[in-house]
Amino acid sequence: MANKNEPVILITNDDDITSPGIRNLVEAVKNMGKVVVVAPDKPQSGMGHAITIGSPLRMNKMNLFGNDVEAWQTTGTPVDCVKLAVDKILHRKPDICLSGINHGANHSINVIYSGTMSAAMEAAIEGIPSIGFSLLDYRYEADFEPSRQIVQKIVPQILQQKNLDKHLLLNVNIPSVPMKEIKGIKVCKQAYAKYDEEFDERIDPQKKKYYWLTGEFKNFDKSKDTDVWALQRNYVSVVPVQFDLTNYTLKQKLEKKNLFK
Amino acid sequence: MANKNEPVILITNDDDITSPGIRNLVEAVKNMGKVVVVAPDKPQSGMGHAITIGSPLRMNKMNLFGNDVEAWQTTGTPVDCVKLAVDKILHRKPDICLSGINHGANHSINVIYSGTMSAAMEAAIEGIPSIGFSLLDYRYEADFEPSRQIVQKIVPQILQQKNLDKHLLLNVNIPSVPMKEIKGIKVCKQAYAKYDEEFDERIDPQKKKYYWLTGEFKNFDKSKDTDVWALQRNYVSVVPVQFDLTNYTLKQKLEKKNLFK
Repeated sequence: MANKNEPVILITNDDDITSPGIRNLVEAVKNMGKVVVVAPDKPQSGMGHAITIGSPLRMNKMNLFGNDVEAWQTTGTPVDCVKLAVDKILHRKPDICLSGINHGANHSINVIYSGTMSAAMEAAIEGIPSIGFSLLDYRYEADFEPSRQIVQKIVPQILQQKNLDKHLLLNVNIPSVPMKEIKGIKVCKQAYAKYDEEFDERIDPQKKKYYWLTGEFKNFDKSKDTDVWALQRNYVSVVPVQFDLTNYTLKQKLEKKNLFK
Repeated sequence: MANKNEPVILITNDDDITSPGIRNLVEAVKNMGKVVVVAPDKPQSGMGHAITIGSPLRMNKMNLFGNDVEAWQTTGTPVDCVKLAVDKILHRKPDICLSGINHGANHSINVIYSGTMSAAMEAAIEGIPSIGFSLLDYRYEADFEPSRQIVQKIVPQILQQKNLDKHLLLNVNIPSVPMKEIKGIKVCKQAYAKYDEEFDERIDPQKKKYYWLTGEFKNFDKSKDTDVWALQRNYVSVVPVQFDLTNYTLKQKLEKKNLFK
């Protein structure tokens, strides 16, 4: 049972509950509090902030991380997992929500598509301090050892900071290099970057066309305080994220122009 | 064929290509330019910014809106539809992207979960001026006549405004009342509101538990320039939306505290 003073740490991800990334995240923080894992039963990369509306969800308790770590797999999206965890498993808000460690980058515009970051954002909307971690290596056999050390550096700091932001949410990306090559941890802004999409058009055995999404990542942001800039120089990037999407500059312009009388 | 001077208007939605909302949107703007519809073949509400990574996509050309309107249904998400439209159907950026008219509200925090708004955001990321329209009536038989008039008021204004914002994106919500009761169109900010989730727990015929997502909408934002405030008073709300999610206030605080040395 949980010691009453130890923090409750909710862990989720989008790669699925059996992925090395989430196992490494659990290992990194399991001595910092009571860890509860609620994660999808299948890969959910690119699910963004999807929720399950038209069909019901299932949950199964599993022993995947040893007896000290309560773990549930669900049939839902990463966002569903956070909702289920708070309402049906913890019956309270955890002290922190950690999402990841994602296999692959979630810097710049990826924050929009990422199931990892959407789960973390869902927790932040609820007022739970929340951090998404991503390693810039999508391979199953990626080396998560440096990432574990980064997690152990960042999480205790955030657990101690009670009043930084009511909806604290951080997007942490970690370069795929040995620990000794990591230059430090940099607070950054989200780079303006996007994918140049090209669909790979193919013909199936029934002679019908089908399309695979492919795309080349392009960074259009030349400023030196972006996450892409920091990662290219082997810094860990930390972007504080918000869910108020109002474009206040454009709001002012529209009000001044009074277009919609 | 398209007149060379008339704008190309890309239309998509998240309710599926056969829904009354998209039909009404097409009707409202089909005299303003060359309309091309690329929309999902099944409901995709709540899909957020999901993209299809692990499986291929299909497209079918259909005659659903008369001979003057090119229309394609796809097996993808709303965001996939925009990507496919630009890369495989239009082979260029349209002059504007319109998404909706959604059956149901997308004000306040709904912008995060909404497939309608994510499709519009995807276009805005590409630099295509984009507007999502939503009617506060989720019923199939909702009255879209006032919404059509609102669309006809807003779209020509935005087509004329070339330099308001490189990534212009508007979230338009329309109250479900007769036209004469609509008080006007108000530029607003996104209200801080959220759902108090409660999962409805049930037992299936095999005696296993399953869960339906339910939730009560709660507005925590008391300010008078929010979309929720405007809609409650029968104004159409227009929230300018951005995809730079950086929380600059928190960024400054974190830099000052220098937590991650």
